[in-house]
Amino acid sequence: MKEVTVGIDIGGTNTKFGIVDDAGTVLYQSKLPTQKHADFKDYIQELDSAIKHGLEQTSSDLQITGIGVGAPNANFYRGTIEHAPNLVWKGIIPIVDIMQKDFNVPVIITNDANAAAMGEMIYGNAKSMKDFIVITLGTGLGSGIVANGELIYGFDGFAAELGHVTVNPNGRNCGCGKVGCLETYVSATGIKRTVYKLLADHIEESELRGISFHDLSTKMITESAERGDSVAKAAFEYTGKILGSKLADSVAHTNPEAIFIFGGLSLAGDLIFAPTRKHLEANLMPIYKNKVKVLPSGLQNQSAPILGASSLVVDHLNKKSSVNI
Amino acid sequence: MKEVTVGIDIGGTNTKFGIVDDAGTVLYQSKLPTQKHADFKDYIQELDSAIKHGLEQTSSDLQITGIGVGAPNANFYRGTIEHAPNLVWKGIIPIVDIMQKDFNVPVIITNDANAAAMGEMIYGNAKSMKDFIVITLGTGLGSGIVANGELIYGFDGFAAELGHVTVNPNGRNCGCGKVGCLETYVSATGIKRTVYKLLADHIEESELRGISFHDLSTKMITESAERGDSVAKAAFEYTGKILGSKLADSVAHTNPEAIFIFGGLSLAGDLIFAPTRKHLEANLMPIYKNKVKVLPSGLQNQSAPILGASSLVVDHLNKKSSVNI
Repeated sequence: MKEVTVGIDIGGTNTKFGIVDDAGTVLYQSKLPTQKHADFKDYIQELDSAIKHGLEQTSSDLQITGIGVGAPNANFYRGTIEHAPNLVWKGIIPIVDIMQKDFNVPVIITNDANAAAMGEMIYGNAKSMKDFIVITLGTGLGSGIVANGELIYGFDGFAAELGHVTVNPNGRNCGCGKVGCLETYVSATGIKRTVYKLLADHIEESELRGISFHDLSTKMITESAERGDSVAKAAFEYTGKILGSKLADSVAHTNPEAIFIFGGLSLAGDLIFAPTRKHLEANLMPIYKNKVKVLPSGLQNQSAPILGASSLVVDHLNKKSSVNI
Repeated sequence: MKEVTVGIDIGGTNTKFGIVDDAGTVLYQSKLPTQKHADFKDYIQELDSAIKHGLEQTSSDLQITGIGVGAPNANFYRGTIEHAPNLVWKGIIPIVDIMQKDFNVPVIITNDANAAAMGEMIYGNAKSMKDFIVITLGTGLGSGIVANGELIYGFDGFAAELGHVTVNPNGRNCGCGKVGCLETYVSATGIKRTVYKLLADHIEESELRGISFHDLSTKMITESAERGDSVAKAAFEYTGKILGSKLADSVAHTNPEAIFIFGGLSLAGDLIFAPTRKHLEANLMPIYKNKVKVLPSGLQNQSAPILGASSLVVDHLNKKSSVNI
């Protein structure tokens, strides 16, 4: 019998899942549309069947040790998805209870950014680290904080919402209802807003003047900057400046060994890493200077969300075995 | 044999120490001047003798289980005091090694704000909590962060320097070399600076116009505010506004159950707590609203630093016994 974990990433559009072995190899993966079923029970029935089908396809000799789930508005303590604005199922969904009954193995859920941080520790570039932060840059800015070798969930299960620290109390409106949150500046949407602000304030010609807000993408801004477009370059500089200076506050909280940056915007490489590092250093108090690494994630591939989810199980089983010694 | 711990608080002026029983009762306490001996060995000899004398004075039937030390620039991992600007001993002082040889019990050191947080968890108002933050308001602003029931030390032993998160990058000069740090606004010195700023900017009469910066104290500002002085009242309002709005960022990091405020400025009661709570709430994202308690420390007395230091031993022994099961 070969022991495997199942990692599930529930996104607004697709649910991806995979079967992962001890070494972090994804043996099988597939996906299904998240929002096809208005009733959660129908959705979970299809998902469970698809997982069972995947197991049969992969080998007749597999034993699942647990299932990890990354999902929006997930609560680790309660095993629920709660009032997720981007999902069709309303209210509180007891997904862990339902899946545990169906598979009879431990099921662990958390949000996707926490799962990314755990994935970094179990399979990625933070394998030897006990204190680090992962920043995920997608439509918004997510984060996971590890201290003393443990993911910080907080009292209520909502720790590490660094997308919503305040950059400027008189700044940009945020979807959360606040004003001036970090993710309104630093995210795929944030850098688009910055491009539009720069186009409004300045008179320089830019190849981005011909593109609508809806059509504009991180990839376009990156390619423009690489071709030397001054507005695109300034947008990256501004994004890195705000990210770096706010990360200095995060260092003063948990004194991490490294900060990993994951997701679309991080693929721009030095365009985003260079100003982030520069402005982080400029804002650190002396005891922290030249010590905190800002690194790309070690899980920059299609399977990252599956590995993140699956790592929740590995961590859970590691802890259980250390308690039983 | 009655088991006791020894708690030592090394301050710039005095070193206070006490013998503490299981219930957190200080059975004996005394102090000696910290800076009398230019050579650290002479200092530690006097301190060790004074502790041994205290033990004899208290009972012939005591067994020390460990010694906890709160000290400036203390490093928990290395057991050292490193380059403390306010102490006469320069360089790196291996205090834990020295005391361990003399007493043959575990010796644990950390900075005073971390010790205060541990004291709050072992003896104070955070006994049942696993996720909280302690803010100590003295000459500067210190802090200790507890998550998952553990004090966060960070990669390098310097976590929780919330006195040095940035309020305003174009703001007040800080002793750390940065500009606009939280402690330049929120601390005994910070509120004095705010009073002087208000006196400079406005023309209102104030009883504080007759007092020099050196003579001005938190107690005077508190008493003025209680008598209705508009400048003193505005200084508290401003201090609480800045503290509350920055604590909202801290909540987005570790999602604490409560934030405890300790030290001189906290004795002003609602003058500081009311604006802090109001501006914390105003800056929280919706998932955190009306959930985070802002409370006075449960250790507001002369023995607090001794209890904080002693609690480091209790925590150390608790962890050791849980590993040995």
